[in-house]
Amino acid sequence: MLFFLVSGMSKFRLTFGGPARRDYDVVVVGAGPAGLSAALYSARFALRTLIIAEVIGGTLIDAGVIDDYLGIPGVKGTDLARKFEEHVRSYDINIVHDRVVDIRNEGGVFRINCLSGSEYVGKTVILAVGSIRKKLNAPGEREFSGRGVSYCAVCDAPLYRGKVVAVVGGGNSALQSALLVASYASRVYLIHRRDTFRAFPAYVNLVKNDPKIELVLNSVITEIGGTKTVEWIKIRDIRTSEERKLEVNGVFIEIGSEPPKDFFENLGLEVDEKGYIAIKPGQATNIPGLFAAGDCTGGNYKKKFDQIITAAAEGAIAALSAYEYLMKEKESIEGPTY
Amino acid sequence: MLFFLVSGMSKFRLTFGGPARRDYDVVVVGAGPAGLSAALYSARFALRTLIIAEVIGGTLIDAGVIDDYLGIPGVKGTDLARKFEEHVRSYDINIVHDRVVDIRNEGGVFRINCLSGSEYVGKTVILAVGSIRKKLNAPGEREFSGRGVSYCAVCDAPLYRGKVVAVVGGGNSALQSALLVASYASRVYLIHRRDTFRAFPAYVNLVKNDPKIELVLNSVITEIGGTKTVEWIKIRDIRTSEERKLEVNGVFIEIGSEPPKDFFENLGLEVDEKGYIAIKPGQATNIPGLFAAGDCTGGNYKKKFDQIITAAAEGAIAALSAYEYLMKEKESIEGPTY
Repeated sequence: MLFFLVSGMSKFRLTFGGPARRDYDVVVVGAGPAGLSAALYSARFALRTLIIAEVIGGTLIDAGVIDDYLGIPGVKGTDLARKFEEHVRSYDINIVHDRVVDIRNEGGVFRINCLSGSEYVGKTVILAVGSIRKKLNAPGEREFSGRGVSYCAVCDAPLYRGKVVAVVGGGNSALQSALLVASYASRVYLIHRRDTFRAFPAYVNLVKNDPKIELVLNSVITEIGGTKTVEWIKIRDIRTSEERKLEVNGVFIEIGSEPPKDFFENLGLEVDEKGYIAIKPGQATNIPGLFAAGDCTGGNYKKKFDQIITAAAEGAIAALSAYEYLMKEKESIEGPTY
Repeated sequence: MLFFLVSGMSKFRLTFGGPARRDYDVVVVGAGPAGLSAALYSARFALRTLIIAEVIGGTLIDAGVIDDYLGIPGVKGTDLARKFEEHVRSYDINIVHDRVVDIRNEGGVFRINCLSGSEYVGKTVILAVGSIRKKLNAPGEREFSGRGVSYCAVCDAPLYRGKVVAVVGGGNSALQSALLVASYASRVYLIHRRDTFRAFPAYVNLVKNDPKIELVLNSVITEIGGTKTVEWIKIRDIRTSEERKLEVNGVFIEIGSEPPKDFFENLGLEVDEKGYIAIKPGQATNIPGLFAAGDCTGGNYKKKFDQIITAAAEGAIAALSAYEYLMKEKESIEGPTY
């Protein structure tokens, strides 16, 4: 499948000739809202555009019902991802399913190497790789991953109809997940290590008023256990150090995310104190020609607020910056110059 | 109508009591993509939200078919505005049709005065007032405004079926307008004072390949004339100073826009060299509690790229900033504190 996609899309579009080269004006890495919007705008700027991504939709795939993307009310994350993808595919944009492992600037172009062994060449790169979900690192978490331990409530909530489930976290995604899971499960323990929530008041109100949800505050999970699948968790009250066992059929871990900091640093990218790519106005990074957008970005110029609409906007701005960068390089642009 | 809207919406939502006070956590001024997104997010933050705007949709109303708002391909500007409005109206958000004439900070709250005489009070304000279309300032322009002179191709293009029309400008909106008008008119002169276009290459290509569009470069309009409606324009070649008359039935003026700089300066807002509100990360202005989003903003921290998606993102970020500002003020928030 991968081979088919790669060979079918690129070999008839070579610019500089040569059998192995696959040259683009813009290579977008990642296909969440930021990457898809970057590609859409790149194509509208008449730039030869490639998307390399493992999955299309990014974090949308993990989202429940989304009601904060202006103009598309109450839509499932997977449906919104499909709308985005269809929009992007209406343009002449190549999409390759692969994982980028290295990006090197050689002679003024970027060589993008993928896990499959494929190499692509881009005059500019837009990184929109998102961030990675944080783990509890509790005993049993890895062992029962996919067998009761989940990081995606919207994917797995329907599996817990009538069951007892724990949700861990205190932010928006944790509370959203608790609400979603409670619409299936018979009982939800919302486990949070503090006694206050970072989540929006609207979510806190809904959670507090949901009769199926029981708040377990000032508490952490110390172990996840069972036989074939999760059957229990141990929780410790961090004020009293008291431990107790709760019988649950599943655990949803929603404690935030972190960027692939090592990957960024290996590429030579400046990152902020949390490991997010330090962007400048225009979604520029410290590497000329390499731009970044979406959840993977941070730094002093960005208000860290990772929403679909902000990611998509950053993608559009990154595409404009790539376009302007290429315009300065004159000969980089195909077709007539004005 | 105005009176009905104002009195019908606000008087039953008073917070501090008193017959004339209308108090909100967030008053959003303007209802384009930035203002509507700001209101949507404000309401999702459980803030009492008021929109004051003359028209709903902002520049969308003037737009043709929009294909760059990710997820909603090929939509008419007016239809996209309606989608946005419906989404916003699904929340508990008041919308008042009025024009804001003054905003004063008194005792830690903003008093917002409107043309109708109404006054509203907001703990925070989000300005999303957009910018104003530039005029040619040619003799006859004002006289024939609405009688052949138009600043809104999408509104008026259908009136010129089979007619001869001039479009003035060299940017994206001018070329988009020329293409749109050419789908109705028998002939379109695209008049531009330079011999190169600022517009995206995709638009330039389309314009150059459209048999109905004739490029009139290095030229400016010196006069617009007619009897009841526009019948001719005079254009001057700026290299040769040669003047000639072109018979046209209409003139679309698409030479960009400018912010209401005087209004901003009267409010005490710092503006950039072009008169746009100088924003800091988080859409903050120099006035605490007053945020700004969309086309009316500029400054060193903003890449000036006024798209629907960027305006909507800025609105969302401004709402987050307003929420955080109110959170710091503690007692400002209704309901339980966490």
